[in-house]
Amino acid sequence: MAVGNTPFPELPPLEGVRLGVAMAGIKKPDRRDVVVIELPETVAVSGVFTRNAFCAAPVLVAKQHLEQCRAENRSPRFWLINTGNANAGTGEAGLRDARASCVELAKQAGVSEQDVLPFSTGVIGEPLPMERLLAGLAAALESMASDSVAWEHAGQGILTTDTRAKGTSVTVEIGNQQVTINGITKGSGMIKPNMATMLGFVVTDATIEAPLLDRLLRETVDRSFNCITVDSDTSTNDACMLAATGTGPRIADEEQIAVFSNALQRVMTELAQAIIRDGEGATKFITLQVDEAKSRQEALDVAFTVAHSPLVKTALYASDANWGRILAAVGRAPVSDFDVNRVVIDLGDVRLVENGGRAAGYTEAAGSAVMAQSEITIRINLGRGEESATVWTSDLSHDYVSINADYRS
Amino acid sequence: MAVGNTPFPELPPLEGVRLGVAMAGIKKPDRRDVVVIELPETVAVSGVFTRNAFCAAPVLVAKQHLEQCRAENRSPRFWLINTGNANAGTGEAGLRDARASCVELAKQAGVSEQDVLPFSTGVIGEPLPMERLLAGLAAALESMASDSVAWEHAGQGILTTDTRAKGTSVTVEIGNQQVTINGITKGSGMIKPNMATMLGFVVTDATIEAPLLDRLLRETVDRSFNCITVDSDTSTNDACMLAATGTGPRIADEEQIAVFSNALQRVMTELAQAIIRDGEGATKFITLQVDEAKSRQEALDVAFTVAHSPLVKTALYASDANWGRILAAVGRAPVSDFDVNRVVIDLGDVRLVENGGRAAGYTEAAGSAVMAQSEITIRINLGRGEESATVWTSDLSHDYVSINADYRS
Repeated sequence: MAVGNTPFPELPPLEGVRLGVAMAGIKKPDRRDVVVIELPETVAVSGVFTRNAFCAAPVLVAKQHLEQCRAENRSPRFWLINTGNANAGTGEAGLRDARASCVELAKQAGVSEQDVLPFSTGVIGEPLPMERLLAGLAAALESMASDSVAWEHAGQGILTTDTRAKGTSVTVEIGNQQVTINGITKGSGMIKPNMATMLGFVVTDATIEAPLLDRLLRETVDRSFNCITVDSDTSTNDACMLAATGTGPRIADEEQIAVFSNALQRVMTELAQAIIRDGEGATKFITLQVDEAKSRQEALDVAFTVAHSPLVKTALYASDANWGRILAAVGRAPVSDFDVNRVVIDLGDVRLVENGGRAAGYTEAAGSAVMAQSEITIRINLGRGEESATVWTSDLSHDYVSINADYRS
Repeated sequence: MAVGNTPFPELPPLEGVRLGVAMAGIKKPDRRDVVVIELPETVAVSGVFTRNAFCAAPVLVAKQHLEQCRAENRSPRFWLINTGNANAGTGEAGLRDARASCVELAKQAGVSEQDVLPFSTGVIGEPLPMERLLAGLAAALESMASDSVAWEHAGQGILTTDTRAKGTSVTVEIGNQQVTINGITKGSGMIKPNMATMLGFVVTDATIEAPLLDRLLRETVDRSFNCITVDSDTSTNDACMLAATGTGPRIADEEQIAVFSNALQRVMTELAQAIIRDGEGATKFITLQVDEAKSRQEALDVAFTVAHSPLVKTALYASDANWGRILAAVGRAPVSDFDVNRVVIDLGDVRLVENGGRAAGYTEAAGSAVMAQSEITIRINLGRGEESATVWTSDLSHDYVSINADYRS
């Protein structure tokens, strides 16, 4: 299942960026499961990674390599991604495998080990099938290309339980020059990113210094990938990478930064929303908008409490205007001195709750009409401050249970 | 679905305690849905209530009446319970209805309004059908009895989506005299109590002063009802009541308190576990034992993070030894300075995780053998302190989704 019909768009080539894809049979045959992305020497690279304490071996290695490159005032040149195996919960052996795959790619590409960042996604706790991975790596390197087909194949090559590839491209004018941002992402379950999504790879042809790139990545991820949840489970392998190839216009002054940041936010938000639209078993795309909170954190806390409620999510799945479940979820959010009489809750354009109870004009027919839609906005006004937050989530369906009860079989 | 076969036990009569039950058709016909419990004049009553900010009208009224009685050095004499309607999210009208039902019972029983504590459970946000409730109240008063059949009917009369009535009785000797504790409870979904369960009513024939009764209730609930979760949703109507009728032995010195507290803990734990065994769609009863945490709160945080993980719960449902999901959930628990290399995770008697990854001797066959059982213990040793916590939960099945997607239809 997935919400809406969004075919993979045409991603334009970016100078110096090449993508190679292979079917290595990591977990299943006949499936693109190894991707290599090459970036030019002029690139700057930034990344955010999962905060899960049991983070995967490739996450540890990618962070280390990124730091080592930074210490030498340069950026990594290759992203190596495999699906079908997360190389997480694999201890010392997992670290050795992640490093060995970087060494092999570095050797074949004529760069140093630190120039390669590894990413894995899939089942946790199984050893990485190194022989198949290394064979796939060689095949991927032979298929390197920069056209839109290569981007689409790369989008396919990073999927696990996803039902479709997810990509987007935005082009804006900065100082009479065009700047393009291409992005691909994957993710469907175990989605409650904390600093990043499952996997996101975003590349722009702009020229951006690393410290500014770090800031732009952090800011835009905080309002996109960090505002989505399918099932409240933060993965061991989350990573979102942003590369500026350095071949195009320089982004430096405030106006340039504003235009670029805006475009980057569009890319990040669209990719993050694409994950929710393809959330495991999703039949609904839900926007939770919390307004008039005392702080942004408070707004996020309320939004995520509702977004994580299995009872709200099953009511959404059933198209049942059981608004009492929304009220109960709001009421258990970690908010101190909560005056529920000031809370106003709207379902689409229908007022559900005011003055501590059901809104006077509410009718079941009006509520049901909104619930029947596949894209639903729930607005919660706390009436106690000026901060807002928006979170996107999916519903909880029979298919979610089927997918996750059958995943390894 | 429910785990295990536990028929309703025989609860002995307690002097001065009478129970009346009626079929009032609050939501559905031919169903026991109104219960009146009468306590003797010598009683002391204590209660803990939901912390949900949108707490229901009867919760507000029950707390108020309890306080008013306390201020006059006495205790309420009647508990009035209806199912089929939670009288929550009903604003001022809900408060009026809750008070009116107390006034009516007080009039018929010849006591004052404050002597009646109201409790409601069921759908949130619908007005209480007062005519049917008051007719049921009169019928319940006519059926008052004290035998074990009356207790069993009361156990049935407080159910909603529960598949079976839940009760227990424990008798202990204190100073050569017998003390009995009877308890009934209900709850199946929207179960993540915070200070109390959905509804629990526990009565002992001991004589206990109110302050001590408060302490004993708080302590035993903290290690029973507050350690269970079905779906992480805290209800608007949670309440757990404890009455000491004052007709039996006095509990006052340390030794008496220790014996009584122990017996009360057994009652509370058994009732709380009965809710999990009857959790919506439950096919497994899961015990999460966290040891060697820095604090009890930290142990509870880790246990609840695992207990709430939809991916862990669906793997348990599927009897799939996908232990990576347990590791990922532990890793995202809110624990600071978490050294995952010290964490040891056991599934039943099988070691899953040590040294940051899969345990050396682990085999899929051994893990699957434990996962196939209907009662499973997961032990998580954090290796960083001396505190422990135990939490009980159920799995996430297709039936959970069906029950909650169809609940109002």
